[in-house]
Amino acid sequence: MAVFPPPKRLLLGPGPSEVPPRVLAAMAQPLVGHLDPAFIALMEETKRLLRSVFETENTLTLPISGTGSAGLEACIVNLVEPGDEVVIGVNGVFGTRLVEVATRAGATVVQAEAPWGEIVPEDVLAAAIARARRPKLVVLVHAETSTGVWQPLEDASRRAHAAGALFVVDCVTSLGGCPVGVDRLEIDAAYSGTQKCLSCPPGLSPITFGPRALAALRARTRPVQSWYLDLGMIERYWGEERVYHHTAPISMNYALYEALRLVVEEGLEARFRRHRLNHEALVAGLEALGLTMAVAPARRLWMLNSVRIPDAVDDVAVRRTLLDVEGIEIGGGLGPLKGRTWRIGLMGESSRRANVTRLLDALERTLPRHGLTLPAGAGVAAAERVYAQADAR
Amino acid sequence: MAVFPPPKRLLLGPGPSEVPPRVLAAMAQPLVGHLDPAFIALMEETKRLLRSVFETENTLTLPISGTGSAGLEACIVNLVEPGDEVVIGVNGVFGTRLVEVATRAGATVVQAEAPWGEIVPEDVLAAAIARARRPKLVVLVHAETSTGVWQPLEDASRRAHAAGALFVVDCVTSLGGCPVGVDRLEIDAAYSGTQKCLSCPPGLSPITFGPRALAALRARTRPVQSWYLDLGMIERYWGEERVYHHTAPISMNYALYEALRLVVEEGLEARFRRHRLNHEALVAGLEALGLTMAVAPARRLWMLNSVRIPDAVDDVAVRRTLLDVEGIEIGGGLGPLKGRTWRIGLMGESSRRANVTRLLDALERTLPRHGLTLPAGAGVAAAERVYAQADAR
Repeated sequence: MAVFPPPKRLLLGPGPSEVPPRVLAAMAQPLVGHLDPAFIALMEETKRLLRSVFETENTLTLPISGTGSAGLEACIVNLVEPGDEVVIGVNGVFGTRLVEVATRAGATVVQAEAPWGEIVPEDVLAAAIARARRPKLVVLVHAETSTGVWQPLEDASRRAHAAGALFVVDCVTSLGGCPVGVDRLEIDAAYSGTQKCLSCPPGLSPITFGPRALAALRARTRPVQSWYLDLGMIERYWGEERVYHHTAPISMNYALYEALRLVVEEGLEARFRRHRLNHEALVAGLEALGLTMAVAPARRLWMLNSVRIPDAVDDVAVRRTLLDVEGIEIGGGLGPLKGRTWRIGLMGESSRRANVTRLLDALERTLPRHGLTLPAGAGVAAAERVYAQADAR
Repeated sequence: MAVFPPPKRLLLGPGPSEVPPRVLAAMAQPLVGHLDPAFIALMEETKRLLRSVFETENTLTLPISGTGSAGLEACIVNLVEPGDEVVIGVNGVFGTRLVEVATRAGATVVQAEAPWGEIVPEDVLAAAIARARRPKLVVLVHAETSTGVWQPLEDASRRAHAAGALFVVDCVTSLGGCPVGVDRLEIDAAYSGTQKCLSCPPGLSPITFGPRALAALRARTRPVQSWYLDLGMIERYWGEERVYHHTAPISMNYALYEALRLVVEEGLEARFRRHRLNHEALVAGLEALGLTMAVAPARRLWMLNSVRIPDAVDDVAVRRTLLDVEGIEIGGGLGPLKGRTWRIGLMGESSRRANVTRLLDALERTLPRHGLTLPAGAGVAAAERVYAQADAR
């Protein structure tokens, strides 16, 4: 059965993003044992690099041995005990998932709801916090991958702390693509994924716990319901004691180490600028083609661009042509946005000028095949103008 | 900091084992999306290959996106509801871990205990099953990686079913190295790891659920406490519906697919014979050196060899010399066996004649440096005699 090696794709969906050759090469290195001094040195260096990317001094900063959803569950089950109240912002798939995970952990959940495609407004969050009697956590999704919405965090952090709650943030899609600033924003716990703006394959979930979250972890009266995600034990495995917990995924940690080195070599500020510029060029190109962005300008993520699917265009057929003919993956909508939006990821290594123009060029060929009349060449030209302006600055 | 690329080691510890070049090369392939038709075809093929290695027809046979401990937890939390009685055989680290995980899932645990280094005897298990009023699960560790003990399963399977319980087996270390025979032994649920006899890097946990276990899963009255490990949801993601759950670790799945192809190309019977022969040669060599195996002959695993550390020899110093001077990793003992045994893994790709003689040769050089007088050359010669006898058959 000829499924391997896989076909060559340009990954411009909601993740995984393109993985740089250096990261792929790292995964092909022969393995050492998970207690080998060389691997322990790599663990230490990975923690240091992760702190720098999370913009934090938090000691407990490490990759969970599972995907972003495992990191989500780790943050919730380590901080929640049955009966605890948790306020969660819900405006997409990942807020909804947080509610489900927190409920299974025995939390009483108060939802701060907003329509998919919009942020959770300050007053809605404030009202939800007020409805809770004594919230232990306030949780927001920084970059809602299902909608492309960029959630502001400053006001929420203040309100969470004023209510005596820990402020927990999902930065699966934002980390490495836009500022997260764990210490600056006083985020108490955060989790991310590797396959978005870090441009590492999926399989690990970087998390960070600050002093207040650690204190809550230490003050638990019952064991964490998940043994695999028990941060107290994982901390001792990743800490100086090296107490055996599970066998760390060696090759994935090679990949993450190399991916983080690339992030730090580029520099966070330069990386953020690159994500912003390619986003602006893409939006200019898409709008020049007559397409409409699904999120209000001030709320758009740089790394995940939601575009309305024009009426009378077949979502699946267009994506299939892009994949089969052009070799480009973009994402469809989820939940209520299924069939209504496309999700174009410009994450990490995928956020490149050549990819933006290649996609616009491919859309200019593909959409007319599916019945849409387009101003030929307008998309690429508009994007190029954005790049030219940036070059001139 | 010069921690990467890692040093070249020969991995003869309790895992990870050596990873074949074809598997390393698979991981270095560029990624496709996790909903790409090419990846979906690979998922289907992986399930088919896993069924063949587990020796089962079970439809629900797939890799959990975490290490073996995640597979362990998945089996327990999907089958246990609070208050359920669970009988667990405990004669090493992994039985102990099962007790901890089942307890956190709300189970009432009845332990069938045996000394570390021995099997759980039939009468001890029978008594534990009798002590339980209505056990839902009977769980045994097939290959106790912490001790090197090979647990017989036939009688336990009959007793579990006679008591109306599901029979659940940890085959993390046995799968691909000795017969597991899920259908033949009427095992209802089993989990494994990738980094032992499958010779794939750590990071995934193959599991299989038979019809009775599936019925128990469908009959649950409450949600599985772990969202990440919820098999009902994972089944829909890996099944025809492709309902998004998490993002599968693409590169790790490339690796597992290629590792499973290698297992099937070799053939299970040939692979088991190879593991057995290299084990016999190693034991002959170790005993010729005057060392003593820690497990009774009939209970020894082929893939994990526990050796008593001679008195007056420094465990850690010897292992450090083996690693630094000879480039060979072997494992130390765990729990009550710490400092008392070495664990020599001959798992998957590590189980090779050249590795057995290289280790014996290295021990003949290393142990005298640490104060032990040895009959020079005796170890390699004894192993070679075993190979010569096998060649002559």
